[in-house]
Amino acid sequence: MASFRRIPKEQLEALKEVSTATVAGLLPRMGIRSCFMTGLFPLRPDLKMAGQARTVRYTPAREDLNAGAPEDRYLRPQWQVIEAIEPGDVLVMDGRGELGGGVIGDILATRVKYRGGAGIVVDGGVRDTVTVKTLDIPTYLRGMQGAPGPVTLTDVDWDVPVGCAGTTVVPGDVILGDGDGVVVIPLALFDQVLKEGVHHERLEVYIRSKIEAGSSTKGVYPPTKAITEEFDRQAH
Amino acid sequence: MASFRRIPKEQLEALKEVSTATVAGLLPRMGIRSCFMTGLFPLRPDLKMAGQARTVRYTPAREDLNAGAPEDRYLRPQWQVIEAIEPGDVLVMDGRGELGGGVIGDILATRVKYRGGAGIVVDGGVRDTVTVKTLDIPTYLRGMQGAPGPVTLTDVDWDVPVGCAGTTVVPGDVILGDGDGVVVIPLALFDQVLKEGVHHERLEVYIRSKIEAGSSTKGVYPPTKAITEEFDRQAH
Amino acid sequence: MASFRRIPKEQLEALKEVSTATVAGLLPRMGIRSCFMTGLFPLRPDLKMAGQARTVRYTPAREDLNAGAPEDRYLRPQWQVIEAIEPGDVLVMDGRGELGGGVIGDILATRVKYRGGAGIVVDGGVRDTVTVKTLDIPTYLRGMQGAPGPVTLTDVDWDVPVGCAGTTVVPGDVILGDGDGVVVIPLALFDQVLKEGVHHERLEVYIRSKIEAGSSTKGVYPPTKAITEEFDRQAH
Amino acid sequence: MASFRRIPKEQLEALKEVSTATVAGLLPRMGIRSCFMTGLFPLRPDLKMAGQARTVRYTPAREDLNAGAPEDRYLRPQWQVIEAIEPGDVLVMDGRGELGGGVIGDILATRVKYRGGAGIVVDGGVRDTVTVKTLDIPTYLRGMQGAPGPVTLTDVDWDVPVGCAGTTVVPGDVILGDGDGVVVIPLALFDQVLKEGVHHERLEVYIRSKIEAGSSTKGVYPPTKAITEEFDRQAH
Amino acid sequence: MASFRRIPKEQLEALKEVSTATVAGLLPRMGIRSCFMTGLFPLRPDLKMAGQARTVRYTPAREDLNAGAPEDRYLRPQWQVIEAIEPGDVLVMDGRGELGGGVIGDILATRVKYRGGAGIVVDGGVRDTVTVKTLDIPTYLRGMQGAPGPVTLTDVDWDVPVGCAGTTVVPGDVILGDGDGVVVIPLALFDQVLKEGVHHERLEVYIRSKIEAGSSTKGVYPPTKAITEEFDRQAH
Amino acid sequence: MASFRRIPKEQLEALKEVSTATVAGLLPRMGIRSCFMTGLFPLRPDLKMAGQARTVRYTPAREDLNAGAPEDRYLRPQWQVIEAIEPGDVLVMDGRGELGGGVIGDILATRVKYRGGAGIVVDGGVRDTVTVKTLDIPTYLRGMQGAPGPVTLTDVDWDVPVGCAGTTVVPGDVILGDGDGVVVIPLALFDQVLKEGVHHERLEVYIRSKIEAGSSTKGVYPPTKAITEEFDRQAH
Repeated sequence: MASFRRIPKEQLEALKEVSTATVAGLLPRMGIRSCFMTGLFPLRPDLKMAGQARTVRYTPAREDLNAGAPEDRYLRPQWQVIEAIEPGDVLVMDGRGELGGGVIGDILATRVKYRGGAGIVVDGGVRDTVTVKTLDIPTYLRGMQGAPGPVTLTDVDWDVPVGCAGTTVVPGDVILGDGDGVVVIPLALFDQVLKEGVHHERLEVYIRSKIEAGSSTKGVYPPTKAITEEFDRQAH
Repeated sequence: MASFRRIPKEQLEALKEVSTATVAGLLPRMGIRSCFMTGLFPLRPDLKMAGQARTVRYTPAREDLNAGAPEDRYLRPQWQVIEAIEPGDVLVMDGRGELGGGVIGDILATRVKYRGGAGIVVDGGVRDTVTVKTLDIPTYLRGMQGAPGPVTLTDVDWDVPVGCAGTTVVPGDVILGDGDGVVVIPLALFDQVLKEGVHHERLEVYIRSKIEAGSSTKGVYPPTKAITEEFDRQAH
Repeated sequence: MASFRRIPKEQLEALKEVSTATVAGLLPRMGIRSCFMTGLFPLRPDLKMAGQARTVRYTPAREDLNAGAPEDRYLRPQWQVIEAIEPGDVLVMDGRGELGGGVIGDILATRVKYRGGAGIVVDGGVRDTVTVKTLDIPTYLRGMQGAPGPVTLTDVDWDVPVGCAGTTVVPGDVILGDGDGVVVIPLALFDQVLKEGVHHERLEVYIRSKIEAGSSTKGVYPPTKAITEEFDRQAH
Repeated sequence: MASFRRIPKEQLEALKEVSTATVAGLLPRMGIRSCFMTGLFPLRPDLKMAGQARTVRYTPAREDLNAGAPEDRYLRPQWQVIEAIEPGDVLVMDGRGELGGGVIGDILATRVKYRGGAGIVVDGGVRDTVTVKTLDIPTYLRGMQGAPGPVTLTDVDWDVPVGCAGTTVVPGDVILGDGDGVVVIPLALFDQVLKEGVHHERLEVYIRSKIEAGSSTKGVYPPTKAITEEFDRQAH
Repeated sequence: MASFRRIPKEQLEALKEVSTATVAGLLPRMGIRSCFMTGLFPLRPDLKMAGQARTVRYTPAREDLNAGAPEDRYLRPQWQVIEAIEPGDVLVMDGRGELGGGVIGDILATRVKYRGGAGIVVDGGVRDTVTVKTLDIPTYLRGMQGAPGPVTLTDVDWDVPVGCAGTTVVPGDVILGDGDGVVVIPLALFDQVLKEGVHHERLEVYIRSKIEAGSSTKGVYPPTKAITEEFDRQAH
Repeated sequence: MASFRRIPKEQLEALKEVSTATVAGLLPRMGIRSCFMTGLFPLRPDLKMAGQARTVRYTPAREDLNAGAPEDRYLRPQWQVIEAIEPGDVLVMDGRGELGGGVIGDILATRVKYRGGAGIVVDGGVRDTVTVKTLDIPTYLRGMQGAPGPVTLTDVDWDVPVGCAGTTVVPGDVILGDGDGVVVIPLALFDQVLKEGVHHERLEVYIRSKIEAGSSTKGVYPPTKAITEEFDRQAH
């Protein structure tokens, strides 16, 4: 069972004001370089996603480990994690970037949705994307694949740190998604990211309006001390 | 000339009820592992495609083999196969996954459509996708490429077994496509796939409705004997 | 400062009648093989783009070279080229095909637009694509990436020849884009490409109408001397 | 602590008569397809390796997880597994196939050797290969890399199932290496593989001698029932 | 059966004086750009290879096509081509660059050698390289792989044009190999390549001796008309 | 002309005591992460290399830019840089990691050697490696390729910052190579790297001798303050 600190729902909602690009710009300054997942795309770019990570990990298919009757499938890590999803969780599936097997499809995605899952992130293949697209749950994937996961993968672990699209995701990390993609916020940095993120997001809107009005980027963007103070003044 | 057994048109239509993911889930159980093409995307995800494969094969460009006047082009394999397309055929082009040359564009796609082709599958580049998208013929590709095929490829054979996006396609194989992608059904397995596919597709719809209603996946999905029998009873 | 020959605006507009595929079919016959960018996709496939290249070049991130206060950022090549954009210029960013850092986002794209830029082409990552998509400036990219460029790249030069998605772009080259992608026209070949391109584009429309009406490809496509003469006659 | 069944030392020695190719030919017939590591090469092709797997797992570098004084480094998974190596163990490092950081170098390899390690297998980079080559411990790697692991990787787990060069390795699995590369034998299949492997190896030597003497492959190779019985008779 | 024009043995021997780099420098000037195989390495860099191509072609594994008893294996394309090798032939195996299955090992290589084969070229995996290295037959490969071919590949054709490591090989083409790699000479160009190749090879030796003696490259290399005439004079 | 600060020859010699791995371990602590070239291998692992970078940059082949008589070739960037090599320079060729064209071969390498070049580093293909190997000049490459550079590349610049195998090389940077590969030392950091490098190299030798004698890694490696002080004491 995942035992990480739970972020209050309102704070996850508040984070949705902040774009993934803004967060991915802040985290390197806090010492975290690789936080934006590379090579994933949103099935529903119109939805924003914010939640805490629940993870499942795959290795290359090993037929002896994949064996077992459908009746016993619920004991496997992939089933365990899905039936342990709590409201606000984002399911993060480390499918090794492998596209030969689809680790989740419409039925399991429906279950994640029903349990209150905030989103699904797959570094690998997703099945039944036509239907998944209709489920109103934010879903990010590397590719479409009709074949089931066990053709090329074996699920071996859940609720452990995983690699995902060039980032590391620890259970409980905050996962933010928008039309650009997905960014991972280490749980211990969440409060700082939320606070600075909202400020920075609004500052960027302010700067863009100046650029739209004809300002040069010089002295304006990337945000200088002067422009930040100017923004802070007018924001009050 | 392709001399494979022709599947009746109604059966190809019937197959369209089945999703590519369902077929790609069945075939491994019949001993065929790699049947779903990896890395292709649909130009028209709204169209379903079912037909039998006609193939053309490319190798890396060899200028001596590519030489010849436009007047004699119709003797080349690519032209031969297109002018041999019969109603219900799917043109499968093994462009080696190479994206430097587009092996088909709007004019040839129009010709395939006119001849009654059921679809076009390209493991490689397609030209003029903006226009091809308007032709109402299902088309799957690895990427867009404006340059013509001979810049990087030479067509060397047609109506032979080809590799395509991680699968092998034999002329006559049934090719099924939907918004997820494309699956290859070996001709000898078609009857079994059609029968089991339709049953399995409906079973999955039944299961999804249970999951939507709040059922756990345990004992329900992947389909157990019990749930399958329950579905079979209510289906009669 | 870029000192290439400026193509009159009307000629760039006239070029927009020609598809990238048509140009990419002509250039190999003029001796230029690799002219169509491979692996980029349009953020706005509905917009056509024609302009002259202004370039910026990146190398892998070197922290000592990336150092410096935001106040001095405007001295860097990326800032220099953006503030030097003139109406009709296309900004071509050689991000090495690297997807770990986004070299441009909504604010800089807004500035390019304001300065009259005709488009943006990035062999790499773009940030804030959700917003960039609303800017009505044609933008081509390899992938979406929220993280800023310096996480993985360093801008080292501007207005020099660059590699971009498998092509070479020299400042001043004409860059044409449509829903298929982007093609590079060496400046010295522009006049010939424009003239032959418009003719060839119309010839292809003529041929497609024949194919739509049931003509075989034999003797018709690729365009033979006979069909070209037939078209030329009816065009007058 | 690893708690798998220990294979007696003589049996591991006996296995060394069998080539990795022979084992990789047998395992698919026992239902295990992906057992030969793809893309690794031996630093010392002259040495044979047989032992049981001890594993360590990496994810992409996360600076907050990599932090800590050198004094506390011994608490990390990579240190734990190295100091837990027992005679006959093969250290298997799942470096994700990533070549930007070297997860082991001459000093740690020396320690593995001192503790009786039977070999080192790295799906990733190795440092100090010039020195490691002199240590007389079989070492397999994907590439040479001077930079230390934490530049691109974080060690997160040890003695868990890992992916390695296209295979899955469970702690305790038997790892066999020779000049061709490395094969993974699931522990439960070891006895069968040893028995059949030795027989098959000798059969292949017998067949090769016939081929060298001018026999056709027809009826001889791959081994038919007849040739196998002929071999079995002469072997007694 | 292969029915191409046979090059006399002495001419193939004569070709061995010419390096693959020299041939790969000449062929583009004769209109053939991609003639040097990319990504292969020699198992025996000390041996030179010259012969005519016999080809076999693979597609991704299809279990229904791979089925069949070992007794009937000799009917498959791979067996057919090996038992059809004639003295001076080079076996060219188009393994799709795939490294998951080894398409030839020590026993089949021994058979190729016995039949007088001049070499083996594999765009894919080779098994038993430790033994193959001892056979004194030039062998080029993409990688080592212990698993047998059918794990990932199906042989579907022989003595047809194939793609191989970025080149196209037509049966009968002359295949030249040395420590650098392998170059394909279209059969129709052989006489010209042999003649110009020997001349160019000697010219380069002459030029290198001048450079070693301190000459600048200016006016000397690449060979100018003046230096070529100087060489031709002294060569007589 | 390159106008960087010249490092005295003795200091470059002194640096050769330090391994590339040691330097690649130090530089991240000085803020430079990507300093070790990834994916290159030494043609002569027995030679050490230390010198200052002279660079040449390539873009994808553009036939109009590659045109010109051999007589005028000496005006091209590649010829310029080679004829500008001074004793102690390392020629760094940014061949884009592209393997389709070999940017240097035995004759140009001979010229680099004659002019006193300390080594050659190629992120791309090298021709005539069999001969280059005999020249006693350290050479690092990504692959062997017989075809000449212009088949796939165009040289566009020299003595500018270049990307090379995942690193950035600025003219004048110190390039160190050994059997493991190549590391780039920013010129401004050379003095510090030399001093700390020699110390660290010797410390590692000291530690390895302790590990060989049976010491645990705990408290010893990575070097703690205590072990470093112990080493410093015994070193005096």
